[in-house]
Amino acid sequence: MSVFAIETQSSDTRARTGSLATAHGIVKTPVFMPVGTLGTVKALSPEEISACGAQIILGNTYHLYLRPGCDVIDIFAGLHGFMNWNAPILTDSGGFQIFSLAKMAKITTDGYAFQSHIDGSRHLISPEDAVDIQLRLNSDILMCLDQCISYPAEEKEAQGAHELTLDWASRCQKQIQARNPGQNLLFGIVQGGMYPHLRRLSARGLAELDFPGYAVGGLSVGEPVALMHEMARSTLPLLPENKPRYVMGVGRPEDLVEMTGFGVDMFDCVMPTRNARNGQLFTAFGKINISNAKFRTDTGPIEPGCTCYTCQNFSRAYLQHLYRTREILAYRLNTIHNIHYYTALMGQMRSAIEKDRFLTFRDDFYRKRHP
Amino acid sequence: MSVFAIETQSSDTRARTGSLATAHGIVKTPVFMPVGTLGTVKALSPEEISACGAQIILGNTYHLYLRPGCDVIDIFAGLHGFMNWNAPILTDSGGFQIFSLAKMAKITTDGYAFQSHIDGSRHLISPEDAVDIQLRLNSDILMCLDQCISYPAEEKEAQGAHELTLDWASRCQKQIQARNPGQNLLFGIVQGGMYPHLRRLSARGLAELDFPGYAVGGLSVGEPVALMHEMARSTLPLLPENKPRYVMGVGRPEDLVEMTGFGVDMFDCVMPTRNARNGQLFTAFGKINISNAKFRTDTGPIEPGCTCYTCQNFSRAYLQHLYRTREILAYRLNTIHNIHYYTALMGQMRSAIEKDRFLTFRDDFYRKRHP
Repeated sequence: MSVFAIETQSSDTRARTGSLATAHGIVKTPVFMPVGTLGTVKALSPEEISACGAQIILGNTYHLYLRPGCDVIDIFAGLHGFMNWNAPILTDSGGFQIFSLAKMAKITTDGYAFQSHIDGSRHLISPEDAVDIQLRLNSDILMCLDQCISYPAEEKEAQGAHELTLDWASRCQKQIQARNPGQNLLFGIVQGGMYPHLRRLSARGLAELDFPGYAVGGLSVGEPVALMHEMARSTLPLLPENKPRYVMGVGRPEDLVEMTGFGVDMFDCVMPTRNARNGQLFTAFGKINISNAKFRTDTGPIEPGCTCYTCQNFSRAYLQHLYRTREILAYRLNTIHNIHYYTALMGQMRSAIEKDRFLTFRDDFYRKRHP
Repeated sequence: MSVFAIETQSSDTRARTGSLATAHGIVKTPVFMPVGTLGTVKALSPEEISACGAQIILGNTYHLYLRPGCDVIDIFAGLHGFMNWNAPILTDSGGFQIFSLAKMAKITTDGYAFQSHIDGSRHLISPEDAVDIQLRLNSDILMCLDQCISYPAEEKEAQGAHELTLDWASRCQKQIQARNPGQNLLFGIVQGGMYPHLRRLSARGLAELDFPGYAVGGLSVGEPVALMHEMARSTLPLLPENKPRYVMGVGRPEDLVEMTGFGVDMFDCVMPTRNARNGQLFTAFGKINISNAKFRTDTGPIEPGCTCYTCQNFSRAYLQHLYRTREILAYRLNTIHNIHYYTALMGQMRSAIEKDRFLTFRDDFYRKRHP
């Protein structure tokens, strides 16, 4: 039985809507997943995450493994109970953050050895461990441990990373099967750097393993936007059509619109939450910086017509005051607006695809930004 | 017509319940007012402040005058509209914070000259200015500008401060009458250091001016607790019985219980909010520090039986994790609990007074803390 059902297929792009069944409910796709690194989408309560329209959040395995540690989360039978979030959770494998945050990270064919960026403690994580940790978090969607590389990377390095990632994918799959996890879904990750032929080999190898879903990893790592789009566009058709497809760590609203057109079903990015904490707010007309002097006496909401809690209750002048005085409420109200913006954008795209008007939506999206 | 009505008088203490009518609604007394320094009770939304049981909040005139400035708040016709809080607000006069925060503060018979602690800009605030600024904030309850002194202070200094404060009270009263403000209430402030005969003169002089309410200022400035209680206990009976009586900047739960017994009707203190941000949480059994190692795997709420949002939804283990990782949600969930604790304590006292069981309540209160 498939957990993913395509519901509408756009006639003139590869965009589609679907629904993904998880142990904690159905996710309507295409979907954006807010990042909840440490068991909290920064500044928001679980009720607010839902009220912003989020259906599923992402947790970071590396961070949660270090703090609070799996022994604490075990007591709550997983992350849902620990943070009081009863909807779906996807976790990354930890690989990307070991690569980017940990100290003295070393990769071998058997996994990652690294030291904690917090206290320097030494750890080893094999592909099997990555699955076990994510099962202890009781993630609805687990990711295979992958080898991340920098941009730019030599072909040889990219090839090695792809090969190791594919080998680990097979080991992760064996591990989750051995654990007999029930509804927890394990996704494979395509690597291969910016080399289309390596991405093709990676996608083909993963497809043979028959995962319930596939991710494109290794994008949004510093490459030009056009190259990122090209890599996503060319990789997507290599993945099984009837499975959910997730581009990791992407991105800007424009990236979400473009990649939805390529047939991507799932996205995550720290941009809406991180930018909110830096006073940068998303609107249909582009980004605004709330600390801009012109908003000092502005009684209007961030975005006229926006239905988020922040826009319904507070003015730009008040938000500027809170932000300038570094009040805690600023981070929360800004985050609410930005997450709402992202989830509303995905909702608009789902609706446009259902009406087979995706290209019209896309034109309107750009017209508002560049009138 | 009096804005304050005493509803119940305890038979064996001076404690009483009452109701205070303001332009933004009735306040049931005795009441605790959470501090909302900069137009926000730190970390909470207006709905959360209400849900915690707070009836009225305090704003700091000195801070709001500097940031965002009265010109911004004018556009919203006052602080209520600016921060979207539609219940009563009391503001201090700014005197205490000029005295404790501003740079180069100098006092003359005509007011305070000082430099902003933020940008060094120079300002002059006379008693009349203090009233005008608070009217621009549209405070429901304004405080007269007073001269604050350090502890300990020589009698001569305390006498001078009392005399100037009394003179300014008269000037503030004339100013508010000239402004014909309608329902905005101006309270006088008793000063006189730790000298009972000066406090008597101060109280008598203020009573002659016939304010709608009175505050005891200059307490909780570093004096021993017993002396603070003694000064409050001896000053309270000197103030008109039928007017609301407010002890400023106090205090610990024990202080609220003792002083309610002295006949105090109103309190404010940064303790519940500030301590929350330092991980210190109030319970009927005393304070706990959420970062204590013993809470790492504790699945229980902060306080069993507590009906606050935090206790209803989150464990000590999760709160410790959020606090240790300095997540924004930690400050908010801790603040919700502490404000709820303070307002629930006041509610329990109101209920006990109504049943004429205040001394029994007081005994129970101490028995739980020192079993």
